[in-house]
Amino acid sequence: MSELPPCPDAALMRELSETRRGFHREPELSWTEYQTTAKLCQALEGLGFDIVWGASLYPRAPGNPPDRDTDRQAWERAEQALGSDNPYLTAMRNNRTGLVATLDGNGPGRVFGFRFDIDALPITESEDPAHPPSAQGFASQHPGIMHACGHDGHLTIGLGLARRLAASRDRWSGRVHLFFQPAEEVAGGGAVFADLPQLAEVDLFTTLHLGILDRYRIVFDATWIAARIYDVVYRGLSSHAGNAPQAGRNALLAACQAVQGLYALPRHSAGMSRVNVGRFRSDNAHNVIADEVRFRYEVRGGDNAICDFMAEAAERVLDGAARMHGVDWERSVFAEFSSYPNSRALAERIAALALALGLPEALLQESFQVSASEDAGFLIQRVREQGGEATHLVLGSPVGGGHHSPTFDFDEQLLGWGVLLFERLVMEG
Amino acid sequence: MSELPPCPDAALMRELSETRRGFHREPELSWTEYQTTAKLCQALEGLGFDIVWGASLYPRAPGNPPDRDTDRQAWERAEQALGSDNPYLTAMRNNRTGLVATLDGNGPGRVFGFRFDIDALPITESEDPAHPPSAQGFASQHPGIMHACGHDGHLTIGLGLARRLAASRDRWSGRVHLFFQPAEEVAGGGAVFADLPQLAEVDLFTTLHLGILDRYRIVFDATWIAARIYDVVYRGLSSHAGNAPQAGRNALLAACQAVQGLYALPRHSAGMSRVNVGRFRSDNAHNVIADEVRFRYEVRGGDNAICDFMAEAAERVLDGAARMHGVDWERSVFAEFSSYPNSRALAERIAALALALGLPEALLQESFQVSASEDAGFLIQRVREQGGEATHLVLGSPVGGGHHSPTFDFDEQLLGWGVLLFERLVMEG
Amino acid sequence: MSELPPCPDAALMRELSETRRGFHREPELSWTEYQTTAKLCQALEGLGFDIVWGASLYPRAPGNPPDRDTDRQAWERAEQALGSDNPYLTAMRNNRTGLVATLDGNGPGRVFGFRFDIDALPITESEDPAHPPSAQGFASQHPGIMHACGHDGHLTIGLGLARRLAASRDRWSGRVHLFFQPAEEVAGGGAVFADLPQLAEVDLFTTLHLGILDRYRIVFDATWIAARIYDVVYRGLSSHAGNAPQAGRNALLAACQAVQGLYALPRHSAGMSRVNVGRFRSDNAHNVIADEVRFRYEVRGGDNAICDFMAEAAERVLDGAARMHGVDWERSVFAEFSSYPNSRALAERIAALALALGLPEALLQESFQVSASEDAGFLIQRVREQGGEATHLVLGSPVGGGHHSPTFDFDEQLLGWGVLLFERLVMEG
Amino acid sequence: MSELPPCPDAALMRELSETRRGFHREPELSWTEYQTTAKLCQALEGLGFDIVWGASLYPRAPGNPPDRDTDRQAWERAEQALGSDNPYLTAMRNNRTGLVATLDGNGPGRVFGFRFDIDALPITESEDPAHPPSAQGFASQHPGIMHACGHDGHLTIGLGLARRLAASRDRWSGRVHLFFQPAEEVAGGGAVFADLPQLAEVDLFTTLHLGILDRYRIVFDATWIAARIYDVVYRGLSSHAGNAPQAGRNALLAACQAVQGLYALPRHSAGMSRVNVGRFRSDNAHNVIADEVRFRYEVRGGDNAICDFMAEAAERVLDGAARMHGVDWERSVFAEFSSYPNSRALAERIAALALALGLPEALLQESFQVSASEDAGFLIQRVREQGGEATHLVLGSPVGGGHHSPTFDFDEQLLGWGVLLFERLVMEG
Repeated sequence: MSELPPCPDAALMRELSETRRGFHREPELSWTEYQTTAKLCQALEGLGFDIVWGASLYPRAPGNPPDRDTDRQAWERAEQALGSDNPYLTAMRNNRTGLVATLDGNGPGRVFGFRFDIDALPITESEDPAHPPSAQGFASQHPGIMHACGHDGHLTIGLGLARRLAASRDRWSGRVHLFFQPAEEVAGGGAVFADLPQLAEVDLFTTLHLGILDRYRIVFDATWIAARIYDVVYRGLSSHAGNAPQAGRNALLAACQAVQGLYALPRHSAGMSRVNVGRFRSDNAHNVIADEVRFRYEVRGGDNAICDFMAEAAERVLDGAARMHGVDWERSVFAEFSSYPNSRALAERIAALALALGLPEALLQESFQVSASEDAGFLIQRVREQGGEATHLVLGSPVGGGHHSPTFDFDEQLLGWGVLLFERLVMEG
Repeated sequence: MSELPPCPDAALMRELSETRRGFHREPELSWTEYQTTAKLCQALEGLGFDIVWGASLYPRAPGNPPDRDTDRQAWERAEQALGSDNPYLTAMRNNRTGLVATLDGNGPGRVFGFRFDIDALPITESEDPAHPPSAQGFASQHPGIMHACGHDGHLTIGLGLARRLAASRDRWSGRVHLFFQPAEEVAGGGAVFADLPQLAEVDLFTTLHLGILDRYRIVFDATWIAARIYDVVYRGLSSHAGNAPQAGRNALLAACQAVQGLYALPRHSAGMSRVNVGRFRSDNAHNVIADEVRFRYEVRGGDNAICDFMAEAAERVLDGAARMHGVDWERSVFAEFSSYPNSRALAERIAALALALGLPEALLQESFQVSASEDAGFLIQRVREQGGEATHLVLGSPVGGGHHSPTFDFDEQLLGWGVLLFERLVMEG
Repeated sequence: MSELPPCPDAALMRELSETRRGFHREPELSWTEYQTTAKLCQALEGLGFDIVWGASLYPRAPGNPPDRDTDRQAWERAEQALGSDNPYLTAMRNNRTGLVATLDGNGPGRVFGFRFDIDALPITESEDPAHPPSAQGFASQHPGIMHACGHDGHLTIGLGLARRLAASRDRWSGRVHLFFQPAEEVAGGGAVFADLPQLAEVDLFTTLHLGILDRYRIVFDATWIAARIYDVVYRGLSSHAGNAPQAGRNALLAACQAVQGLYALPRHSAGMSRVNVGRFRSDNAHNVIADEVRFRYEVRGGDNAICDFMAEAAERVLDGAARMHGVDWERSVFAEFSSYPNSRALAERIAALALALGLPEALLQESFQVSASEDAGFLIQRVREQGGEATHLVLGSPVGGGHHSPTFDFDEQLLGWGVLLFERLVMEG
Repeated sequence: MSELPPCPDAALMRELSETRRGFHREPELSWTEYQTTAKLCQALEGLGFDIVWGASLYPRAPGNPPDRDTDRQAWERAEQALGSDNPYLTAMRNNRTGLVATLDGNGPGRVFGFRFDIDALPITESEDPAHPPSAQGFASQHPGIMHACGHDGHLTIGLGLARRLAASRDRWSGRVHLFFQPAEEVAGGGAVFADLPQLAEVDLFTTLHLGILDRYRIVFDATWIAARIYDVVYRGLSSHAGNAPQAGRNALLAACQAVQGLYALPRHSAGMSRVNVGRFRSDNAHNVIADEVRFRYEVRGGDNAICDFMAEAAERVLDGAARMHGVDWERSVFAEFSSYPNSRALAERIAALALALGLPEALLQESFQVSASEDAGFLIQRVREQGGEATHLVLGSPVGGGHHSPTFDFDEQLLGWGVLLFERLVMEG
């Protein structure tokens, strides 16, 4: 396995490492990235970027907000840290997290968009001394929350890029939008940010993910799996299970048949297909025929077409199972991930920059199908549909413990390489 | 437990026993009662009855005939026994079995109908020396076929009754129709015989069953369970299970979900409910998604309403399961048993006759719900709907091994009592 | 339908009605009958009964206590009403509710046991003016709790009987134990009270239930349905549903197959059988294979043998379904109801007393199978197994709205008849 | 897409085309390749090959023979065509089809093995004039049977190779075994031929398949999917579905739960996985709880490890489902396909020969994973385990209608290229 060469700019590395560790200490869950956003706002404004955030950024509150207790806790923590009259914070009430930071270069030119996701996960970070953040004292200080997917690294690249572009502002032309997107983990932020007016003017869009491959390898055309997550309600009719079982319409029995049918959906020969059922609840008493069941399920496909196939087949299953037992049902989309193809030419162009930067050819890889989902697909799709170019990069590295594990970690050298690569892209115009 | 007194007419008993044993030796399956019918025709014609049989009796061939091989075997056996030009036999081609024998008394009067079913079962009779037919040399001579439900006794009562009525013809008035009905076991003969013109003129109808209660007890108002048996076809779409599983619509998977749903139909608080699936076949290759499944199922209810409930709930299950997997389906009625109420007054009148005949009161019982089905329900329903009286008797006795078992047997004394009881009914007018 | 004659003792009726309405106003849930028990203690002690209650009555806290919030609320209400140093109350801490009150007559004789259950239900009483308790001002004053099954009437009969027996103490011999049992509705009190030493000396045991039949009819040998309720945990192994579905062991899929198998348990030809699944929960994320599912189910049978059959068949289903998917499982009894046969001779003796008291024969009925469960079965079983006689009576009346409905009500005349009947039983010795 | 250049030897092509069309006209099903084998025996003996066939070739009759009627029909057709005393034919009685033909070169050298499968499929060939065999008059003359997978081409290549090698015998050294293998489609012949002594001396083994890729492309290291096919019997206990459903143990219900569980086996992230159920039969009467169900199922995996995973998971499902309903079960292997890796060096060597023969580089491909199974895997495994080299080639071409379809066809030019390629391999030594 090739080794990652150290980032040539040691000062940059020190700064990025410090930044990243600060954010790593204070992770926030999806749609509650209050402190994270406020800190980013302050830093970016200080660098001369125009920032838009809070209720000005997007008018409607998110469709999949966190539960009330989770949100209150995050808000109170942010108020305590920042003061309850912090202007960044107050504008974010009701989960208006994330920001867009914009800077113009020395003249007209292309409009660049870079997207960095900023949310963390409901995971308790490992205290194992073999886990670097614990060993080196930058582990999460928010109990039960952890940057276990590298978004602390993503936003650090964004901030590092901002510093470089602010410093070199007279040497590049065009405009740069930095999209610091909330709520990637719950697939809510991507769809919201895809509708932002700032995105509508982007010509050239790039986003990235750290880790993923568990070895050093930079991929310039990384595609992700399409996925859809749905919430379902089955509504039957209760009756006394002893005195009149025949008078009921059994929502639990129907839902259990649906679950069987879902897992038995046919495998797809054109690529990866998946189906799974999460949270499943029926709360009837033991002597009452169940009148309501709620559950969530997901389907995935190696591409959008397979995902569509799975979604349609699942709908048939759900409908038939409900009918079997005379039960009504409805479903709503909880989250969606598109798997939109990248711009090949852009990917190749960035690959050439990487080579030029001194990254060894053995570490560079054309394309890769990631077996996970990313809501950046919505932004990529929007930019490409409006005629722009867009691609998704993976900055692969060995990761401790795997993504979403309590010992997740990545190699910070990648942060430096990421900043340099994106800066070079803008400089080249 | 009370004992059954011996039938007072010893000569009658000898004759009935001999008759019964003859028929027991030569059982025939439903719709193939060729020899049985021919022998009955000959005997009844010899007694002066007018007989109608074969294609003259009912114009359309039965809807649920036996399979070709079974039928051919029975036919060839009958030809060998009776000669291929036997006039009784030749008229029966294509499963036109059974007959109606009619005799008029000494003047106008009521029209009596008695129905005796004549078919046997696909069961191999026990050779155990403890089994009376084997011990006494009258076990079945037709391999794999056995009178294991007492219909040999039923038809013997019919023939015994015919002899008595022929002998006493100048002492009773009115008309007697004896319905020797085929195919009770597969529920085909009842519906056909319910449409006969002879039944349309019946004022007073009785039928009976031997055994059932496993003790000596004569029941005058025996009700049976309603039942419906259906044949189902599920039709999907085949595809290669390795190369393109997603291109198929899996009829087997759908049918298996249907089976689960059928057995899970709710129990009914108003009375007995049942559901079962028989013959289930899918013949696809192992590497092909199943495109066709055929199966048969039955629902039963303690009364017609419960049976209706089960039938409708089953239909919902079948429809929903098919839709789950995009499969088309259809069902057709294979057989139906109605559970029609008896004429209470007639039952009481016959009970009084039984007492008068010397049967001990302890052996007599008003009513009983039999946990099985009988297609005589169709004849009872027809007679009652046209204004006549009708009831179903059980001549209960201990039975060896249970109905439909290889060691089934009953007490022949019941044959004598049955004949005397029915004769008395006609004599009383 | 025969009418219930008014209770001949009008003064008794006034007293009973007042007592009942007082208890109806202040219902308490199973295992939280703090005020109810305290009021009964005070009244019975005042009448000269020896009482045993609280931690002295049964050493171990109940196995199925209410949830903490429910209990705290009831306790605080009781403290407020009775004072926090009320000696009856303080001894009941941790759900030691219920009492046994004992009185000896004028000399040695039989030991009588009468059991009255005292708990209410989590139902909000109707405010409909057509509902007598609301119309007449004695509806529940405890929000969300209601005597909707007549136990206020049961304990009123107990208290009325106590007053009569105290007054007539020199006219009867032997000993009377009055068992005021908590927690019938959740099937916890019966098993606890079956172990009491007072029950161990009972020769003649009676209990009763009001309502049930929805018409006036006193049944002297009422049998109830056996039932068992279980809690189940399925434990699998989680894995990422996208990256490594094969690494998981899917507890939800297994549990859904178990549910299907449970509902498909065979119907039983010897009597009523039932099965149902309540509270079913799986809380895994949509992209994680479910590693834990919890659910509750019940089986019922027309007698203990059928219930045993269902319980064993259910266990096979649960075990097999878990094995199908490599899942571990365990179950624990949540509640049990026995269906033990009554003493026929005792039932007939009480029927004779009822006739002698002037109740019309048309209102009296030998026996009845109630399609519900009662934990008095455990006490009946214990008394009969130790050689005593025991039976369960139903004092049937039309009831408003059905048992466990917000408009449940019964005819208070039954209270008087109940007291007179039980008093007469003791007087006769 | 590159075009296939015409085979340079036009005379060879004419001969091969004629041969292939002759065999295409007379397809025979697996284990009934009587005429096919006889014709090959005669031709190869005529060319000077030593042949071994019939009972001399393999001592035991196949474990998965065709049904009796199918076999009788094929045998009678062969007797009619060849005469009932044809010596090739008579030795093949009881499905001893296939042959090994051996020829030695001009001196010692390597032992080459080439395997050609010879069986056809139970498919009715299309009469569509757009289907070349129909248009050009060489469609199947055996109703319901068709060479729809190209084995007619495979054996033609074998025969063409034999002719060339016989003609050039003095120009090559070593020994050539041509394995004309029956019953590939039912996965029976491969395992039998893997045990032949002739195979035990092979140093260098090659086999091939036509079509597959639906474009022109020759693959030198083609791997196939591992598969296992099992036959299952579930044995329960019958009882009357009306009178005593609880006394049965329902094999059908259990088997239907097993089917659901099989289709719901988890997808595998390491590669392709498949599961399917074929022939499923339960023959109980509708009023009898099913006591026996027989079904066949297959699992497949992209490699042997995934196939093992599926087989083990399936076994758990089958065992658990049987236990759910108290049913016994057993399974036996119906057929197995191994997915054994090819010798890479041999593949590369043949690729070089192909290039040398003039096949354009654009048509050559290193490796390919075929999404189907091949029982040649057993022979490859055997040869490699004994130290030889072995590989599987695909001669890809567009195919009419897909494999196993009524309009399957391939480009006959491939036959010529196949012969030349294999001849060259032998010539090179």
